[in-house]
Amino acid sequence: MKLATYKDGSRDGQLVVVSRDLSTAHYATGIASTLQQVLDDWNFLAPQLEDLYLTLNQGKARHAFPFDPERCMAPLPRAYQWADGSAYLNHVELVRAARNSEVPSSFYTDPLMYQGGSDDFIGPCDPVVCANEAFGIDFEAEIAVITGDVPMQTSADEAIEGVRLVMLANDVSLRNLIPNELAKGFGFFQSKPATAFSPVAITPDELGDAWQGGRVHLTLQSTWNGRKVGMCEAGPEMTFHFGQLIAHICKTRNVRAGSIVGSGTVSNKSVEVKGKPQWPKGYSCIAEKRAIETILDGKPSTEFMKFGDTIRIEMKGKDGESLFGAIEQEIVPLNA
Amino acid sequence: MKLATYKDGSRDGQLVVVSRDLSTAHYATGIASTLQQVLDDWNFLAPQLEDLYLTLNQGKARHAFPFDPERCMAPLPRAYQWADGSAYLNHVELVRAARNSEVPSSFYTDPLMYQGGSDDFIGPCDPVVCANEAFGIDFEAEIAVITGDVPMQTSADEAIEGVRLVMLANDVSLRNLIPNELAKGFGFFQSKPATAFSPVAITPDELGDAWQGGRVHLTLQSTWNGRKVGMCEAGPEMTFHFGQLIAHICKTRNVRAGSIVGSGTVSNKSVEVKGKPQWPKGYSCIAEKRAIETILDGKPSTEFMKFGDTIRIEMKGKDGESLFGAIEQEIVPLNA
Repeated sequence: MKLATYKDGSRDGQLVVVSRDLSTAHYATGIASTLQQVLDDWNFLAPQLEDLYLTLNQGKARHAFPFDPERCMAPLPRAYQWADGSAYLNHVELVRAARNSEVPSSFYTDPLMYQGGSDDFIGPCDPVVCANEAFGIDFEAEIAVITGDVPMQTSADEAIEGVRLVMLANDVSLRNLIPNELAKGFGFFQSKPATAFSPVAITPDELGDAWQGGRVHLTLQSTWNGRKVGMCEAGPEMTFHFGQLIAHICKTRNVRAGSIVGSGTVSNKSVEVKGKPQWPKGYSCIAEKRAIETILDGKPSTEFMKFGDTIRIEMKGKDGESLFGAIEQEIVPLNA
Repeated sequence: MKLATYKDGSRDGQLVVVSRDLSTAHYATGIASTLQQVLDDWNFLAPQLEDLYLTLNQGKARHAFPFDPERCMAPLPRAYQWADGSAYLNHVELVRAARNSEVPSSFYTDPLMYQGGSDDFIGPCDPVVCANEAFGIDFEAEIAVITGDVPMQTSADEAIEGVRLVMLANDVSLRNLIPNELAKGFGFFQSKPATAFSPVAITPDELGDAWQGGRVHLTLQSTWNGRKVGMCEAGPEMTFHFGQLIAHICKTRNVRAGSIVGSGTVSNKSVEVKGKPQWPKGYSCIAEKRAIETILDGKPSTEFMKFGDTIRIEMKGKDGESLFGAIEQEIVPLNA
């Protein structure tokens, strides 16, 4: 099924069930008012929502209305956890190659992950508000999952079963704040402002065969200022699957229902053409484009985002239909 | 006023108002069932709770019952944010001196802070469950505040007004996991398991004159296996006050109601006695004791916590009465 959260002036919004083709929606009133409620009591509430989803898809839901992504908050407008991995090692390899540093061998067995802020997510069509263009505003197109309860020390394979919903994320990053921040040794903080998520979160069964081994085997599209810059394959090159990412969190603690776990920037390896590397799939964040430029030309030439820039992130199924709806955001100054 | 959350089998527990002397409590039923609800609508709900608090203190609350800290969850059993600073620079100086590294000058103007997991806090008397003693289990006695909404780019002075409640924290740390984790460059993750908080959270006015300039001017007591090891002054040596810590988060994003912000390990400077440094106030975490031993003797001699060890963290007012109740925990193995 497909779920979204409509703006209603409250902090957690109003849960709606969205039809498979994203054309219509129906309030989940009478079953649950918020998505967190459903995650807290999944086995009892999800089947009721599935029934409504079925009726909605059959065109028989009595109070259905046209679905409008602009009215959406993030599926979870605030969450108890947002843990973002860096599961596509190619992304790390590229960024490191650009600064002539090697990837430690442990990175291929021990996932990189940071704890993000989760108190103030932004909706798929909400502006990205930034106090200063000079912070180096970048998008990061990612896949994210929402979990159920997963106990401490759960194995990676078992942890895949903890995935309740899948969505897309724009993990906005402030690149020019990162070097000083990481140099302090405590990881990202100010360099990671509010994250945006796709209009709908979907159960893994909606992905059919594309959901395999804890990975989404489809193409993630990123369109910057109307130009398609990324058509990255999310499946085969995901070094750590979502079960491994969740198990990484579980090593020393429980993961509780409603935790969001991100894949990190989806990234594909180069192919060699006449002895030179090329990246035909493009990129899912500007930092990667700049790393490629540095590798090829000795310096980056693409600038980060400016106020007024737009970013669209979307993923289509094998039938060509949008699975999650699109993240479509504009960068705007604070107090614009 | 003083607030606590009683265990009732649910994820968020049941809000209770606790009398000033911590002797009696009263369910907040009819006003709010959870603390997050109150934080979401503070201006409307807090005065109603204050009324109940007054009645309770006068011994006139009709359904009052004896307050039992063992029935408490963390005041916020799960939260949308847990951002922990390292606001006592002496702690950083000690740890760095022990490994012969200097504190960068920027550390005195730009707070260190990490984003912690907030989906699964533990109650003040709940065991600290750990899968492996070899992880190097340590307590960290801290002060923490719960905020209201604080908008992006709020100044440090204004941010002090965003403090709604004050409590104590045991920011359990797994010391032997830290070096490898920090070497990866993304900050703490597995080395920071579930955090515990004091039985009650109190409004800053309960601290009277001891709440000054965004700091708590009182002594934080840590008792390890029945032995008082820390009597640290929390006020004068807090390099960054809570307004500065909140403003640090606000630089690039909004802080939303129910965010918890920690002070980091409370730590006091040494005094010189006959040309040698001494630490008469003791320590609020074992890592600091080991740093002191390394400075004095070239190597640490105190081991980290073992299964069965206990830790008690408490703070008393100028009248000698416990302000927040005590954190009293035992270290236990997983699946004990």
